[in-house]
This record gives sequence, structure tokens and C-alpha cells, in this order.
Amino acid sequence: MAIRKTECTFVFYKFSIIMDKTGTAGNKGPGIRSDVWVAVSPAHSGGLKIEINSKVKALFGRQIRALTEEILRFFELEHAQVVIEDTGAVDFVLAARLEAAIKQVVQTDKEFLLPLLEENKTATKKDAFRFSRLYLPGNSPKLMLNAGVHKPNGLILDLEDAVAPVKKAEARFLVRNALRNLHFYGAERMVRINQGNRGLEDLGFVIPHFVNLILIPKCEEAKDVLRVAEKTKQLLQHHNLDYPVWFMPIVESAKGVLNAFAIASADPQVAAMAIGLEDYTADLGTRRTNEGTESFFARSMVVNAARAAGIQPIDSVFSDVSDMEALAENVKRSKALGFNGMGCIHPRQISVVHENFAPDAAEIDKAKKIFLAFKEAEAKGLGVVSLDSKMIDPPVVKRAVTTIELAVNTGKLNKNWMES
Amino acid sequence: MAIRKTECTFVFYKFSIIMDKTGTAGNKGPGIRSDVWVAVSPAHSGGLKIEINSKVKALFGRQIRALTEEILRFFELEHAQVVIEDTGAVDFVLAARLEAAIKQVVQTDKEFLLPLLEENKTATKKDAFRFSRLYLPGNSPKLMLNAGVHKPNGLILDLEDAVAPVKKAEARFLVRNALRNLHFYGAERMVRINQGNRGLEDLGFVIPHFVNLILIPKCEEAKDVLRVAEKTKQLLQHHNLDYPVWFMPIVESAKGVLNAFAIASADPQVAAMAIGLEDYTADLGTRRTNEGTESFFARSMVVNAARAAGIQPIDSVFSDVSDMEALAENVKRSKALGFNGMGCIHPRQISVVHENFAPDAAEIDKAKKIFLAFKEAEAKGLGVVSLDSKMIDPPVVKRAVTTIELAVNTGKLNKNWMES
Amino acid sequence: MAIRKTECTFVFYKFSIIMDKTGTAGNKGPGIRSDVWVAVSPAHSGGLKIEINSKVKALFGRQIRALTEEILRFFELEHAQVVIEDTGAVDFVLAARLEAAIKQVVQTDKEFLLPLLEENKTATKKDAFRFSRLYLPGNSPKLMLNAGVHKPNGLILDLEDAVAPVKKAEARFLVRNALRNLHFYGAERMVRINQGNRGLEDLGFVIPHFVNLILIPKCEEAKDVLRVAEKTKQLLQHHNLDYPVWFMPIVESAKGVLNAFAIASADPQVAAMAIGLEDYTADLGTRRTNEGTESFFARSMVVNAARAAGIQPIDSVFSDVSDMEALAENVKRSKALGFNGMGCIHPRQISVVHENFAPDAAEIDKAKKIFLAFKEAEAKGLGVVSLDSKMIDPPVVKRAVTTIELAVNTGKLNKNWMES
Repeated sequence: MAIRKTECTFVFYKFSIIMDKTGTAGNKGPGIRSDVWVAVSPAHSGGLKIEINSKVKALFGRQIRALTEEILRFFELEHAQVVIEDTGAVDFVLAARLEAAIKQVVQTDKEFLLPLLEENKTATKKDAFRFSRLYLPGNSPKLMLNAGVHKPNGLILDLEDAVAPVKKAEARFLVRNALRNLHFYGAERMVRINQGNRGLEDLGFVIPHFVNLILIPKCEEAKDVLRVAEKTKQLLQHHNLDYPVWFMPIVESAKGVLNAFAIASADPQVAAMAIGLEDYTADLGTRRTNEGTESFFARSMVVNAARAAGIQPIDSVFSDVSDMEALAENVKRSKALGFNGMGCIHPRQISVVHENFAPDAAEIDKAKKIFLAFKEAEAKGLGVVSLDSKMIDPPVVKRAVTTIELAVNTGKLNKNWMES
Repeated sequence: MAIRKTECTFVFYKFSIIMDKTGTAGNKGPGIRSDVWVAVSPAHSGGLKIEINSKVKALFGRQIRALTEEILRFFELEHAQVVIEDTGAVDFVLAARLEAAIKQVVQTDKEFLLPLLEENKTATKKDAFRFSRLYLPGNSPKLMLNAGVHKPNGLILDLEDAVAPVKKAEARFLVRNALRNLHFYGAERMVRINQGNRGLEDLGFVIPHFVNLILIPKCEEAKDVLRVAEKTKQLLQHHNLDYPVWFMPIVESAKGVLNAFAIASADPQVAAMAIGLEDYTADLGTRRTNEGTESFFARSMVVNAARAAGIQPIDSVFSDVSDMEALAENVKRSKALGFNGMGCIHPRQISVVHENFAPDAAEIDKAKKIFLAFKEAEAKGLGVVSLDSKMIDPPVVKRAVTTIELAVNTGKLNKNWMES
Repeated sequence: MAIRKTECTFVFYKFSIIMDKTGTAGNKGPGIRSDVWVAVSPAHSGGLKIEINSKVKALFGRQIRALTEEILRFFELEHAQVVIEDTGAVDFVLAARLEAAIKQVVQTDKEFLLPLLEENKTATKKDAFRFSRLYLPGNSPKLMLNAGVHKPNGLILDLEDAVAPVKKAEARFLVRNALRNLHFYGAERMVRINQGNRGLEDLGFVIPHFVNLILIPKCEEAKDVLRVAEKTKQLLQHHNLDYPVWFMPIVESAKGVLNAFAIASADPQVAAMAIGLEDYTADLGTRRTNEGTESFFARSMVVNAARAAGIQPIDSVFSDVSDMEALAENVKRSKALGFNGMGCIHPRQISVVHENFAPDAAEIDKAKKIFLAFKEAEAKGLGVVSLDSKMIDPPVVKRAVTTIELAVNTGKLNKNWMES
């Protein structure tokens, strides 16, 4: 493998082309849709030879070629053979695949970024509703494209367990481009990074692109959060950005469970803490059951630690995507224990999760009473609120407000309930 | 509002009268009994004008007037209009209401104290039986007067949740006077103070008056106990008193649950630790159920923390005062988990609590065997006690003695069982 | 009691004979078998007078006499009356009883040690299988002799609860001799020492004799382990020995449960941690039930603490030795919670414990898949293993290997499964 160092007039980045090697990225074959597989082989001469195979070539062939040429030129590849096997990829997918392939044969710090959607610049609040968050494999464009229409509270682009080891590198480009160009339909933009140092490297691909929340897997100690917080801060400063990035550490081992409070209170940007029961039960050397006796202690620890730290406790995903009744039971148990939300691995789980986490009639009633007592005390200029003979703490008022907002948002209470 | 500073010959206390203001205290209206509502308006001249309305005026009018005049003179009010709406208040109630009203219009450090009942000077032991303790709203005389006849192990004069914010100030005088003059019928004299600084101020009204035990609400950290312990020590020293004041911190938040052991072992005067499930479940954002799955972890933590610290674990009150069967079930579950007692919010709960916490036949039998083995070893001059082949630790012997005492006290074992 | 100091030519040990006293050791009477009761009374003159009562005197009388004389001479007793009531004791039992009796009348540091069985020199691994361990009272030879044929993973010579206080001293000699001369049939050689300082003294009788594992009772803090570890290290150095001694702390109090992780991670020689529920429930002041609600929290804490420390969590013994179905249920619940084994108090419990802790078909299947994926990755020279899309951590591979070994060992999987 010969490496030819090109003369480089830019002082800002390193640059070199590796000859006699083909870079590839993306997926092809049966079952693949909305994706593209690309192969890029640098050459010494002959210009750009681009071969496009696509069912939609008649319609989009010209556009594919144009973007491909733009990207090759951006990376200063003037001579190369390129093969493109398209199954209906949108621009940001094609761009991600090409960049991933090119960067196997071109050493450069440059990034090819499509314009950021204006709607993807919104920030979220620390206590945003997080009943549901849908996991999307970080390297599967077809599952990403319409995920937002199911209206989960959050969409997770997953770089960890849902991406095979050999696909880790190319997934980063796809996730980065998705953060900029995917329609999220109002869902919070979340990314699950990898464990350890790979996860810290993942941050470089997501922090500069307005990600809202980072899921940190297999947290066992406060320092697992602190390393991510430190790196995040550095990246925001480096890119001169200033918007909130929330953390949701995932506890999925016995050690993490014992250290749950230290993890939950490690950093003010920790907004929620989740438990991962597949890995936790494996760590115990036992099996996960629907009744969950084996994880009752761990879930209780996570709920208590999160509440003590003033953040949201989030339950594990429910694996059986075909059994909606069992899911509903699971959500009810989850809510009864004090959880505020759970992960979803299939869009059809979202509405069941919302329906069963939403406040019920009794909760809404109580919240209304507290809220009205608060408003009355406020109108009278009283410093303290009391309901019956009991003093109402500010956190209780805040929770009542949250319940009412939830009730309104989930259609369980009319927005103008105070007037009726 | 004009403030007239009187010439004061006492150097020991501050004194001033606020004119053009009426001080009021106490309760009147439908449902009020054994109480008195008073209004005190200082005047520049005209002497004391006292208007008494009472169904028992014919019988007690003269006595009411005499005490009222004594108290007004004690606080150096020579000119004032006083209205008294009596519903059958005993002396210590009238005195408390008058002092509370007067102190709104007279600035003074003086306290009007009726003579202390001799029986209210008794101290209690750290490991006194605390199966039941009855909550009494700190501002409701009618519930206090005969509460002791139901024979709870403890009577709690509650300054916290059972007193509305606007009544907090006057309740302190009533609770202070009750500690001195109420018949407790042998029950331990307990006071639940308020949270935070208001609670520390409450102590000034109870510590100098032979209170046995202070319930400290919403403890989240050891320092919540330590502040009360420090203030208690100061007050005892200041008043030159030396009797034991026990503490029962109440854990009622996720943070308190996680810190349960630190709280239980914060101070040697901590004799018991209670859990408050209404607030705890609110803190988790969940609802309290009879099965108690949502609080199983918290109750286990409190039991383990209390036992590890060598103190009594005390369960939460049971809210449904009409369902005695559910209460009995609750007590059995509570005892099975290791709790030593629970709060009562209605006198009728007391006997059910006692009956179900008391040792049963099997426990009494085992305790007798251990006790006899201990006596036998003692008679033989043996340093160690063994039952079957197992060595009996001193704490086990002590627990057996406790069980036997409980069995005798609850009528389940004849006092002279060793002779039969 | 006159003490005659003999002239002693050895500078290595103290030596003196206490006259007018009789040393006794061992058991006699109904139900006693395989044991021997001895009485040794030193005399000023008259040589050795040995009276032997034994049903097998005709067969073994000469051998008993020979060993007795050898031992008396070893301890420099030239004049003594000795009574021997034999019920079929093997040599190491007779030697232990004689030494225990002699040391009541002779002050000496000498030890009479029979040759160590070669098979009793084997070391065990930190993660050896410990599904079952059979408790044997440390002073009852008859239960020891064939215990190993029931094939428990470990045999515990118990110096603690199973030995009456007055028998503690003589049991040490029997346990020491058993470690050297009893056939363990491959079981791990374990000793449960006493609590506190008596336990530290026990170590002198077992550490120099190739014990594999020490059970440390009633651990409440890390230092309870550290003291044993320190003393063990000293003894190994003093005797110039170098073999692994593992520790299994037993948590059996509320305080121990709260400190479970500190105890589990106190020392690298801690290989497992057990919970003792009889004492734990007594500490809580409650009663142990088959459902175990009262100990659910404690068992969960122990499992989590042990797993977080990377050691084996071991459940309590099951007391009802006649109910095999209840035991099987208990083991299943135990395994479901994450425990790796439990104590047995009767040989008939062993097979039930093994059968129900062993991996089942689903577990074996999963382990095989993981193992094959690992082998495949290894063959391909891949650094990472993945199954489906999920990366397999090294600990998961290790657990799969363990499961397969267990399956093969318990006859649930053919040793050559990879070839079929």
C-alpha cells in the first residue's frame, strides 16, 4: 500500500491519499432500503469514474452524480473509481457513506457538512417529558427516516449495541448527518455513544451538531459521567457553541446500581438516569423475567437515586415487541415504582408507553387542587400554600404543574380547564 | 400603628406595647369545643374591659375572668379591650390563647406558665416500648384532652403538618402548656416540630417543659438531626435542666432513604427512626398503595439502617381510619419486615396496632427458652449461654427479655410465668 | 493445684505439667460413634497406666495403646493414668482427643501431627464451583468420616455455631487433624472459624494445614475480613507456606448487609460472600419465612455487592431438611435472584442444590452460541466478538465458558458437544 503525500496549501488540516486501497461504506443486499453502498478507489490519473446502480437512476441519477462529484472534489480526490449501489438514499445518507468511504483512503480533518435544518437547532429543557424514547440503530437509514412521525418524546441514534463492531466507524458519519438533516418531528435528539474511549471519540461527531442528550452506557461510577461531561465542555468551547447538552447515564451492572446516586448527582447536566436490564441481569448471572423480581432491588435503587438527585428515573426497554398487554402491565408497574419513562425498541410501543405513563383521573384531580390552592395563595399574597391543613412545598406545586401539563399534552385535560 | 415603649424596670427582658392593633388567637365556630377564641386590643386608658361569651359562663365566668385578669396584668397590660368566646376551655388552653394573642400586641420575653403537673416530669428510656404513638393536631384542644385514656405508648403534639401555616405561632403556646398541664395517662410525651429553622424555634417552646421525644420531620441528612441535637443541648443548659430528650427522625424522601443509616446513627439521643410514606411516595412521583410495593425498598432501608444503628424502626401511619382489617394486615406486614411500631391518626387504631405488634405464642415460647437458658447459665456461673449447641449472644438475651416484658405488658404472658 | 515446672532442654517451646488435674476430651454416651472419650491424669510416678474400653478392643486394642503411648511420650508425660472410652475412632480422632486432654494438663507449644494426606495438599481456584457446601459440626467425627462421598463442592468443618462453648477448645484439634487426614473426596476444604478474637486464634489450627477457604461469620465491616486476612498472611509466612487461602465472609446482621460491598471488596482473597438468614432475621427482630419477604432486601444487597466486587454471592442454608420440594423452590428463587450456591446442613440437600443451580437448556444454548461466536472471532483474528449485532464483552465470554463447564460437570452437556 503506497501512500502519496499531496502538496497541501491548507495549513488547517492534515491531508494525504492512500493509493491501492478501496474504501467502502454503507449497506446493500436483500432487505436494504433507503441506503447506499459505496466503494471509492483513488487512482493516479483518469479523472473521476462514477458507476451508479439504482432503481431510481432515471429520476435521481443526475442528482446522485452531482453530489458525489461535489464530495469527491471537496476531499480533493481528482482521480478515482467510484461504485454506487443505491437503494433510495437521501442526500445526507449518500454524503455520510461517501465521506466514510473516502476517509478510509484519504487522511484529512475536513468534514463535509450539509446545511443544518433550522428546526434541528432547538434546545430542550432539563425536565422535558421523557416518557418514551425510540432506539434507532445508528447505521440503518431506513429506520431513521420516518421515526419521528410516531411522536416519541425522544429519538436515539444508537452508536453502541445496535451497531456491529465493523460498522462503528461509518455509523458516526451517518449519525452526525442525521443530527443535522433528519426530520425529528419535535422529538428530543438523542445519541447513545459507545462505552469507554470509543464513546469519548463519538462525542466529536455529535456534540458540534446540536445533539440534545447523550446516553452514556454502562455507567459504574461518577467518573464515567464526568469524563463525558469534560469532553463535551471542551468540544462546545472548541466549536464556540453554547447550548445545553443533557446526559442520561445508563446503569446496567451491579456496581452501577450500588453507585446510582453518585452517578445521578455527578454533574448538573445529568437530566435523567436509565437502567438497562438485559446487561444488569447478565451481570448478576441471572435471567430477566416479566415479573422482574431479580431486578426489583436495582430498579428501586435507580428510582431512589434519581429522585434524591432531582432527576428523572427511566426504566429499561421491554423486549417483547409483539405483546402490547404485557408492555402495558410493565409500564404500569414501572410508573407505580416511580419511573418517569422507558426506552422503546419498536414504534408501536410508543403509544402504549405514553398512555400508561400519563397521569390518570385521580392524579389529575389532585394536581388541579394543589394548583388552585397555589393560585389562590398567590392571589392573596400569601407566602405559603396550604391544602386542607397541610403546607404545600414548592416541589409539590411544581410536580402538580408538571402533571397538569402532561394531562394537557396527552389529551387527558382540556387546556382551558381553569375556565370551565 | 404606633409603638409606645413603656419604661421598664426589668433588665431581664424586652418589653413594648403595640397600639392600634388587635391580637387574636384560638378557634371558634361550628364544631369547635374545649377551645376559646380571644381578641386583645390594647388601649391608652380605660382599664381592662373583658367581654366573656360562654355557655358555661354561669358556672365558670368568674374563674375565666380571674385568670384573664391575672394574665393581662402579668404582661403589664393595664388598659385593654378583651373579647373571649369560650367553648369550654380548661385553664391551660385559655392561658395559651391569651398569651398568643397578647404577644401579637406586646413585645416581651416573659412566659406565663401554669404550675407543672408532677406526673409530667417523668423521663422515658431510650428503648421504651413504642408500638403506637397517636398524632394530635397541635392547635386542637378538644382532641388532646382525653387522648391518653386510649393508652397509646406515645402522644404526639404535632406542630407540623396538622397545623395550618397561619396557626403555627399560637399552636406553640398551646403545645407548651399541654406539655406542662395535660394528663398524658402514662404515654410518652412527644412533639413533632416543624422542618428547618421554624423547627429549631419550636424547640424553645418544648425542650424546657420536660418533653420526652422530638419527632424531626423530613430528615434527609445527618445534619438535620445534629442541628436539633445542638439546639436541644443549648436549651437544656440554658434552663439548667438535665433529663433525656430522645429524637425520632422521620425519613420521608428518596434522599432521606438513601441516607437512612447516617441519620439513624447521627446522635446517641436518636432512639427510633420513622418513615413517612405519604411524602415519600409523593417525592417518588408515585402513589401509595396498601400492598406497598412502591415503598418496599424504602421500608427495608429504614429497618436495616435502624437495626444497624441499634435503634427502633417505626413504620408510617395507615391512612384509612375506617378499615381495621386492612390496618391489622398492614401491622402484620410491618412487623414481619422488622418494624417495632407505627404512628396512629385515630384512637381506634391503637388497640389493633398493639394486638398485632405484640409477640405471638411462638415468639414468647422462644424467648422463654432463651431466658431460662440464660438464667441457668448465670446460676452455674457460666460466662457464656448456649441453647441447643448454639451460643447465645448478649443482644439475643436482651431481645428475649424485651419480648417477655412485652408479652407480660400486653397480657399475653402471666407475670409469674417462671413459677408455673 | 500444684504446677511442677519440668526442666526443659528445648528452647523452642514452653513446657510444664499441671499435677492433680485430669484433662478430658471427646464424646461418649448414647448415640456417639466413631469418637473416643479420653481422660488423662498426670502422676508423679508409676509410669503410664492406660485403660481402654472399646467394642473393637480385640481388633484394635493394641493399635490404640500404641498410638496413645506414642502421643503421651511425645508430650513428655512419663507418669499418668489414662482412661479411653472408644466408640470406633480412627487414628486422627484419637490423636486429637488425646492432645486436647493432654494440653489441659501440660503446657506446651508442641503439636502432634499425623502425616498429611497427599490429596489434602491441593489448592483451589478463586472461582471454583461452590454450588453446595456441607456444614459439619467441628467436634463430631461420625458426621465427618463419609461426608465427602455425597460430593458436595465444599465441606465445612464448623468451629462456630455447631460447637458448644465448652467444646470449642477440643474441636480445634479435631478440625486440624481432619484437615490433614480426613478424605474429602475432592471437596474444597473449608473451615468456619468463630467470631472475633476466638476466630483469629482458630486460624492457628487451620491455616498451617492446607485449608482452602475460611468462612468468617458475622462480618459487619471490612475490617472483620482484614483482621483475618492479616493473621492468615502472618501464619503462612511463619510456617513458610505459600498457597491460596480464600475467604467467604458471612453477612448476618443489618449492619453487615449495609456494608456488604465494603466487605466483599475488602481483600483480593475474598472469593465469595454468604448471607446467614437465621441471625439476620433475629437481628431485625423478625422471623424467617419460606417466601423470604423479610430478607429480600438483604439478599439483593448481598448479590449486588458480591457481583459488583466480582465474587460469588452465596445464599443461606435452608433449615427444613425433610422438605425437598421446598428446598428446590428455594434454590430456584435463589438462582433467579443471582446467587451462585448455598450451604447445606444435611447430605440429602446436596443433589437438590446441584440440580437446581445447574444451568438449564436455555442457558446452555445461549452459552454455546456465545462461545462459538468467540471461537469464530478468534479463528478470524478479530479483536472483538459480536453476536447478532451486539458486541460481546470479555466477562460475558468468560461467563459462557463457566456455564458450559458447569453443564458438562453436571452431566447436562456432552463434553464433546462442539464435535457433534
